[in-house]
Amino acid sequence: MKIGIIGSAHVAQTVGGKLVQMGHDVVLGTRDPSKLDNKKGGGGTLRDWLGAHPSGRVATNAEAAAHGDLLINATNGDGAINALTLAGAQNLAGKVLIDISNPLDFSKGMPPTLFVKDSDSLGELIQRTFPDAKVVKTWNTMTADVMINPALVHHGDHTIFVCGNDEGAKSAVSDLLKTLGWHDILDLGDLTAARGTEMLLPIWIRLWGTLRTGNFQFKIVR
Amino acid sequence: MKIGIIGSAHVAQTVGGKLVQMGHDVVLGTRDPSKLDNKKGGGGTLRDWLGAHPSGRVATNAEAAAHGDLLINATNGDGAINALTLAGAQNLAGKVLIDISNPLDFSKGMPPTLFVKDSDSLGELIQRTFPDAKVVKTWNTMTADVMINPALVHHGDHTIFVCGNDEGAKSAVSDLLKTLGWHDILDLGDLTAARGTEMLLPIWIRLWGTLRTGNFQFKIVR
Repeated sequence: MKIGIIGSAHVAQTVGGKLVQMGHDVVLGTRDPSKLDNKKGGGGTLRDWLGAHPSGRVATNAEAAAHGDLLINATNGDGAINALTLAGAQNLAGKVLIDISNPLDFSKGMPPTLFVKDSDSLGELIQRTFPDAKVVKTWNTMTADVMINPALVHHGDHTIFVCGNDEGAKSAVSDLLKTLGWHDILDLGDLTAARGTEMLLPIWIRLWGTLRTGNFQFKIVR
Repeated sequence: MKIGIIGSAHVAQTVGGKLVQMGHDVVLGTRDPSKLDNKKGGGGTLRDWLGAHPSGRVATNAEAAAHGDLLINATNGDGAINALTLAGAQNLAGKVLIDISNPLDFSKGMPPTLFVKDSDSLGELIQRTFPDAKVVKTWNTMTADVMINPALVHHGDHTIFVCGNDEGAKSAVSDLLKTLGWHDILDLGDLTAARGTEMLLPIWIRLWGTLRTGNFQFKIVR
């Protein structure tokens, strides 16, 4: 599948790298593709990423978005709207847009707070800003390594949430998740459910501190 | 153990009833103990509760608080500070106070929003208002039936969170939880972790709607 990823830091590199390995035609979008040797927040350099994934490509966010039949927003939350604006509304229109970002505000130090919450969410904000995209919120409640390898935590016996306003888009995303080994894919309904999944971040961050690892997961036992 | 419960609605009745059955000396606190025949929000009448639990008692919030060596705040979140004020700061001082309440605001309809969140929590607000109580936040991330009977959901294979500023108080609460069949009791540290557990409520409510039952639970798989 032709996949365009908006963002080029740790989450984008991890998810993009796995999708390249799986044979997808992946373009990673970044603000300035000439800066291949700069380390990207939490990730390595894009030159290293290209070296490890020779069939992957790096381009502008607009080129990545134009390339993809399926798009992934893997930016930091506070840069999401700006990066997607650079990607271009016309390049998002009609396409499935997986939104991994979380509305984390680190401006007052750790732990971060949420800059949108409760009666709104970043997923909904992205959907309102780009009404012709088919936003599916998922992957935002775990560390990047677990996103692409659920078996990393207790044989994959845990839950991933999806929500969005377009049933076909959610179905396409669930199919992609299954190819990565996800079994318990829990559809929470329309995109207003992103309020709940984004509001998992404070306890996620607390658990990360308590357990001293990001390799844990929520399971909805029922 | 002498246990005083602040609150007399569904959660208070369910938890209090179970503790009576287990042989504890339980007093349920209510605003006006003479109104035994009024149904209590989400629960039955206190006359029915007394009939089912003859060794339990109903009294004022102040009497319940004075009675208990261990106290439980089982009020609705928006009534918590008021009910605990009626219970009397002097009756809370030096005692373990389990706080089950959640800061749910139903004033704008369903789903509720949270009236405190993110950089503060209801648990912390209660602790600040009653600094001599030893607040332990727990039980607030599940339905009342599961609080007292974890085996109701998949043989009890799921997680309960505790947090609070007093290690001895958390230890006492964990011991009580174990007698109810809780195995995976996860200590998240000081009371600021209540921000995270209270912010689970939006996804809890969404899951309740999606799964059409309250008999589910979070498990932290690690």
